[in-house]
Amino acid sequence: MRRRSLLALAPSLLLADTRRPWAEVEKILEQGNFQGRLSVDDLPTPALLVDLDALDANIAKMAAHCKAAGRALRPHGKTHKCPEIAKRLMAAGAVGACAAKLSEAETFANGGISGLLVTTAVIGKHKIERAVLLAAKRPDTIFCVDHEQNVADLDAAAREAGQRLNLAIDLNVGNRTGIATGEPALQLAQAIARHKNVRFGGLQAYAGQASHKNGFDDRRTMSRGIMQTAVDTRRMIETSGIPCPLLTGGSTGTYNIDSEVEGVNELQPGSFVFMDIDYARIGGKGDPVYRDFQYSLSVLTTVVSKPAATEVVVDGGLKAFSTDKPFRPEPKGIEGIEFGWGGDEHGKLNLAKASRNLAVGDRVEFLVPHCDPTVNLYDRIYGVRGKQVELSWAIAARGMSQ
Amino acid sequence: MRRRSLLALAPSLLLADTRRPWAEVEKILEQGNFQGRLSVDDLPTPALLVDLDALDANIAKMAAHCKAAGRALRPHGKTHKCPEIAKRLMAAGAVGACAAKLSEAETFANGGISGLLVTTAVIGKHKIERAVLLAAKRPDTIFCVDHEQNVADLDAAAREAGQRLNLAIDLNVGNRTGIATGEPALQLAQAIARHKNVRFGGLQAYAGQASHKNGFDDRRTMSRGIMQTAVDTRRMIETSGIPCPLLTGGSTGTYNIDSEVEGVNELQPGSFVFMDIDYARIGGKGDPVYRDFQYSLSVLTTVVSKPAATEVVVDGGLKAFSTDKPFRPEPKGIEGIEFGWGGDEHGKLNLAKASRNLAVGDRVEFLVPHCDPTVNLYDRIYGVRGKQVELSWAIAARGMSQ
Repeated sequence: MRRRSLLALAPSLLLADTRRPWAEVEKILEQGNFQGRLSVDDLPTPALLVDLDALDANIAKMAAHCKAAGRALRPHGKTHKCPEIAKRLMAAGAVGACAAKLSEAETFANGGISGLLVTTAVIGKHKIERAVLLAAKRPDTIFCVDHEQNVADLDAAAREAGQRLNLAIDLNVGNRTGIATGEPALQLAQAIARHKNVRFGGLQAYAGQASHKNGFDDRRTMSRGIMQTAVDTRRMIETSGIPCPLLTGGSTGTYNIDSEVEGVNELQPGSFVFMDIDYARIGGKGDPVYRDFQYSLSVLTTVVSKPAATEVVVDGGLKAFSTDKPFRPEPKGIEGIEFGWGGDEHGKLNLAKASRNLAVGDRVEFLVPHCDPTVNLYDRIYGVRGKQVELSWAIAARGMSQ
Repeated sequence: MRRRSLLALAPSLLLADTRRPWAEVEKILEQGNFQGRLSVDDLPTPALLVDLDALDANIAKMAAHCKAAGRALRPHGKTHKCPEIAKRLMAAGAVGACAAKLSEAETFANGGISGLLVTTAVIGKHKIERAVLLAAKRPDTIFCVDHEQNVADLDAAAREAGQRLNLAIDLNVGNRTGIATGEPALQLAQAIARHKNVRFGGLQAYAGQASHKNGFDDRRTMSRGIMQTAVDTRRMIETSGIPCPLLTGGSTGTYNIDSEVEGVNELQPGSFVFMDIDYARIGGKGDPVYRDFQYSLSVLTTVVSKPAATEVVVDGGLKAFSTDKPFRPEPKGIEGIEFGWGGDEHGKLNLAKASRNLAVGDRVEFLVPHCDPTVNLYDRIYGVRGKQVELSWAIAARGMSQ
């Protein structure tokens, strides 16, 4: 390598950068009213983006499917954690939103969302007191339960407050939470019916193992079998004389399977709004790739180092992408690149077989392995159309796992 | 199972719960001045806890080690992301704090921290403008660089603002970012020296592969070899006539190795404040387990479902724990339990071989697989001594990966 002379200074590239100064960008970001003034190139990276055209198309498609199938749509809010997206879904016909936890539901309620279904049991004195407060604000909220003690506790708290809480029984069809289908669920429904300050609202059946079953036919066989046990439980409860107005369940992976099961009258898919690499690989109807919904979510990064001619490092690592799946972030618009984890803050890209070269300062956009936990890393999501940033939404329920 | 009579109602357990009402707890949490009024049992779960006795012992031990070894201590703030903890470290003798990214450094600066070292290169017009603003506020901030163009850009921005920025060269000893040791690093130091609006502040050498190398002796051999190349580069630069006042590096895994390397004059460990399962398994000096620092960090959860006699589900899943390591959260105070991921919001515990039984409503505290990305999931950390919650700190730089 030739030694540079002491007077040879590298020229700054900053003058060649035509972006407006940061002080102006910061003001625009704070004002939140972008009006065509903000480009994706202006966003500090790593940044979470949602393609609004793809988001709207996904919402419209799911809403149309549910409408045609005569099923209610109550999309799961744990995916987006964003009241603005919940509102967009309701504008398209959704009856409300599911929330995984009480604090997520409270955030949605504060954000103007009604029709909430809290999909995890609300346990313990304090959370039950909060559930009663939430129900006072949004009386149509439904709380999932899976054992009788919880029903008694909710009933006592509701009585104390002079309220009546809507309860749905969480059925254990997914090897996680819930009470067994059949007789145990019937007994729990009867217990709910005996308590005066709670109202039996129906059944919830969510089976994660079916959602992500590879291959449409195998997935259909599995989900139909599972949902039939839920339907049988519904009928058993109705036959006992207890009305059971709701059987809610399903996922992005099974939306067009469960909607064909007679007796499942509500779907609660979440990931379809964004899609991710995990869902793409499960396969669609007659297609090895699942393409029912478009990728709308991505993470924008910047190349911050080029330690070798065929290697660059981007500014997104374990704190920018979820790591719970074996899949890596996939760059958009570049072929032949494999992403390697570079610790908390960095990702390593080997360019040896890349379809184009990358330099320090270049931006690289990635599809994400798993949408829900990735979104949960960010405080804001930027809505883009092409290069324009149209809006910024607070991920208001980020971190709300309580 | 016997069918209950229609009149047999399960009694509520809420009356037996002697905790103060949620409305009071909420007020105490909002006021932030706990004064012995808040118990860990009052915290909504999942909650991130730090044992203050263990934290203080860890800080004191590392500070004493660095003092005795005559090394400066600039702990990495990407672990805790909490200005209050950075302050606690400085009160014990730390010279400042490292920040992985610019936005993390800005947050620390706003939180009153000086002596900042930004360990990732600041790339692009906007971030360089922000770096200049940060340096105006905290003139002792040091920015890492690893190529000449970035030096030229920083110099131009500093000139424009009438400032002078401190730069350290990031050496590529960790297979991630940085410039090669030896001649390339010397040339970059010479380039910095030629620019009038930047000041050459020294070298950074961080090698993640050494930090987590299993077995103390192997780790020592590896880290000594790596750090020696950094020291050689330091000497080469000094011999060329450019003063090199700083060689910073090291980690929780190598703090007592690198501090013995002549020429490494500053340590930047991060995880020692909290510890995690990942670090425990690397082994200590003459010990298969690394016990130099105590576990101070944990995540408190609640059992929310008991789907079978030997299985319970807690309310912490992929959004409550980092998942980038192959290790699972480990329950404190219960033996024979294996944690299984139960999706975004749940963890499954098999009780078949558990040292004690668990019921719905019980609380289970877990050690975490990897501290940094776990902390990055929470907005607050609760400082506890025994059952008392003494304080709550904002994890102000949570999500600040920009």
